[in-house]
Amino acid sequence: MSPASTPVIDPVELTRDLIRKPSVTPADEGAMDVLERALISLGFHCRRMKFENIENLYARRGTAAPNLCFAGHTDVVPTGSPDAWSAAPFEAEVRDGILYGRGAVDMKGGIAAWVAAVSRVLAQGDVPGSLSFLITGDEEGPALHGTKKVVEALMAEGEVIDACIVGEPSSQHALGDTIKIGRRGSLNTWITVHGRQGHVAYPDRAANPVPVLARLAARLADHRLDDGYEAFQPSNLELTTLDVGNPATNLIPAEARGRLNIRFNPSHTGESLMAWLNAEAGRAQAASGLRIELEHLHSGDAFLTEIGPFVLGVQDAVEAVTGRRPEASTTGGTSDARFIRAMCPVLELGLVGQTMHQIDERAPTAEIEQLAEVYRKVIETFFARV
Amino acid sequence: MSPASTPVIDPVELTRDLIRKPSVTPADEGAMDVLERALISLGFHCRRMKFENIENLYARRGTAAPNLCFAGHTDVVPTGSPDAWSAAPFEAEVRDGILYGRGAVDMKGGIAAWVAAVSRVLAQGDVPGSLSFLITGDEEGPALHGTKKVVEALMAEGEVIDACIVGEPSSQHALGDTIKIGRRGSLNTWITVHGRQGHVAYPDRAANPVPVLARLAARLADHRLDDGYEAFQPSNLELTTLDVGNPATNLIPAEARGRLNIRFNPSHTGESLMAWLNAEAGRAQAASGLRIELEHLHSGDAFLTEIGPFVLGVQDAVEAVTGRRPEASTTGGTSDARFIRAMCPVLELGLVGQTMHQIDERAPTAEIEQLAEVYRKVIETFFARV
Ligand SMILES: [Zn+2]
Ligand SMILES: [Zn+2]
Repeated sequence: MSPASTPVIDPVELTRDLIRKPSVTPADEGAMDVLERALISLGFHCRRMKFENIENLYARRGTAAPNLCFAGHTDVVPTGSPDAWSAAPFEAEVRDGILYGRGAVDMKGGIAAWVAAVSRVLAQGDVPGSLSFLITGDEEGPALHGTKKVVEALMAEGEVIDACIVGEPSSQHALGDTIKIGRRGSLNTWITVHGRQGHVAYPDRAANPVPVLARLAARLADHRLDDGYEAFQPSNLELTTLDVGNPATNLIPAEARGRLNIRFNPSHTGESLMAWLNAEAGRAQAASGLRIELEHLHSGDAFLTEIGPFVLGVQDAVEAVTGRRPEASTTGGTSDARFIRAMCPVLELGLVGQTMHQIDERAPTAEIEQLAEVYRKVIETFFARV
Repeated sequence: MSPASTPVIDPVELTRDLIRKPSVTPADEGAMDVLERALISLGFHCRRMKFENIENLYARRGTAAPNLCFAGHTDVVPTGSPDAWSAAPFEAEVRDGILYGRGAVDMKGGIAAWVAAVSRVLAQGDVPGSLSFLITGDEEGPALHGTKKVVEALMAEGEVIDACIVGEPSSQHALGDTIKIGRRGSLNTWITVHGRQGHVAYPDRAANPVPVLARLAARLADHRLDDGYEAFQPSNLELTTLDVGNPATNLIPAEARGRLNIRFNPSHTGESLMAWLNAEAGRAQAASGLRIELEHLHSGDAFLTEIGPFVLGVQDAVEAVTGRRPEASTTGGTSDARFIRAMCPVLELGLVGQTMHQIDERAPTAEIEQLAEVYRKVIETFFARV
C-alpha cells in the first residue's frame, strides 16, 4: 500500500463519533462499526469476535513480526443522571476547547488517538512489522466475554503479539506523567460463620457466630502480607463488609457473614492467598467449634512488565513529545492488561484519568491531539528499535 | 367481711376465662375486666391505672401491714401461625387434662392460681395484714407503661408493699423446682465507627471503619467481666449484630455498625459497664483515628433478694405442698421484678415455663391446681411468720 492511499484521521473527530454511540456495557450501539470503518480505511483486516452478547474486534495490518498491538474498550460506564451533566453525555459537545462526553477519557479518546497516530505513521510509509487492535465491548462490566476470551482464541490459533499498549487513562495530572507497567491482583473472599441461634440470656444453649467472625476479620486485617515487591506497593487487605442483619437485641443470631478484598503484588498469587485464608479459617473453626465457609472470587493475579527495551522505548517517546518522563507505576485497579500479559509485555498509557467514570467526563481536545502525537512517537520508537 | 361472704374460685376456669381474651401486647381485649370482677368478688379495692394505651391494675384488700403483693401481667406474646397450633390459641381447650392456649403458662395460669389461692385463704378467714395485686398489660412489650409506671406512682403516694411474689413461670421441669430470687441486669450498646469511603485499590485515600469495628468487637467479646457473684452466673457479653451493608466488592464503606448485649450480675451496674465500654471505644478511637460513637440502652440493673425469712418461707411452703425444695436461682431474662425491687423484696414463683412463648403453649390442669395450693401455702406461711 502506498503512503498516499491511507487517509489521515483526526483524533478529536473520531473520539466524538465514538462518544455519540451510547455503548454502555454491554450495549454496543454501533461504536464498534465506527472504529471498524476507520480501520478498514487504514488497510486493517478486521475480525469481529462475538462472545455471548458482546462485540469484540481484532484488527491487524501486515503479517510480519513484530506485531505491536493497541488494546482497549469501546464500552463505557453509565452516565448517572444526565441532568447532572453540564453537557449531554452522548453528544460530544466541545466547549472552550474541552470535549465533554461519557468515554472521552475512558477510553474512546485513547482509541481515537491511536487510530490517528497509525494514520500519521502510515502517511509516512509502512512499518517494518504489523500493527493490530484488540478492542472489546466488555471491560467495564463483568469482563467475562471480552479481552479474556479474545486472548484465549488468539492464543489457540497461534496468533503472536509482541508488545501491547493499553489505552487506559494512565496519566494522573498531566498527559504522560504516568504509565502503568503492572497491576496488582485482586481476590474477593466471602466468609460465613455458622452458629446456633438462641436467647442472649441463655448463651449456653446457643453458639454465637459474631465474635468468631469479628476475631477472624480482625486477625486477617492485622496481618501484614508483605512489604512490597519491586515497583509495587505492599499488598493490601480490606474488609469490605460485615453483615449479620439481626434486628433483635435479645437474640444471638444463627449466622454471620463478611467479605474482604485483597489487592496483591507478585509476592502472592490468588492460589497462595486462598490457601492462607483457608488455613486461617480452619484455625478459627478449630478454636471456636463453629463451621466457617469461605467463598473466593479470584479476578486476576498480579503482573509486572519488567523495565526493558519496550518500557524504556515508550518512556523515551513520551518524554520526547511531552517533555515529561513518565513514572512507571503499578498502582490502581485492575484492567484488561491482566489478560493480555499472557501473550506479551503490556503497559498502559493514556489520557489524564481524573474525570473517568464521573459526571462531566471530559478531555481537552489539545490533550487528545497530543496523545495522538505521543502514540505516533511510541509506534515509531518501537519499530525503530526492532 | 365474714368467711362465708367470699366465693371460692376455680383456678383452671379463671385461667380459661383469661385466655379467651386475646390480650396480645398492647391489646387488653377485656382480660383486665375478667380479673377485676374476680377480685371485686373477693373484696379487693381495685384501681385501674392507665398509662398511654396500657391497662394496669393495682388491687388491695385490707389496709393493715404487712402487705403481701402478687405481681404479674395479663398481656401475652403473639401466637405465631394459629394453624401451627394443635388447639386454637385463644379457645382454652382442655384435652387429656392439658389446657392449651396462649398465656396458659406465661402467665394467666399463675394469676388465676393466686386468685384461687386468695379465695381459699379468705374462706378460712381474714389475713393479719393486706393482700394486693399489681398487674400490668405491658410486660411482654416495651414495658414502658406498665409495672415501672405503676411502681413509680405507688411510691409517690406512699403506698407500702412488704413483699412481692411475681407469678412468672419460674419452674424448670417440675412445679416448684425453682424460684428466682434475682435477675441479671441488661445493657444494649450500639457501636458506630465513622470512616471515609473510597476504592479498595486506593486505601490511602479512604479510612476503613470495618477493621476498627472488628477489632473493638473482638476485644469486647474476649473480655472476662467477672467470675460470678453469689448466686449469679458470670456476667456475659454477646455481640448481637454487625452491620455494614456494603454491596460493592471494590468499595471501602464509610461506616460500620455493631450492637452488643450484656447480661450482668451485681458485680456491675449499667453505669459502670457504660463507663468501661466508653473507655474501650475511646482507646479504639485513639488507636485508629476514626470517630467511634456508642449509644447505650440500659434496661435494668441486676438485683438479688437475699436469702432470709421471706425467701425461706416461700421455699418451706413450696416444699410442704410439692415435696420439692426449690432452688433459688438468678438465671434467665429480665422480668418486671426489676421494677418492683425498688419497693420490697421480690421473688418469682410460677408454673413450668417450657412451652412459654411457643406454639402450643400449655399447662396440665393439675399443675395449675397444684400451683393454687402452693400459693395458698405461701400466703399462709407469710402471715403465720409475721
Ligand atoms: Zn477503561
Ligand atoms: Zn411473663
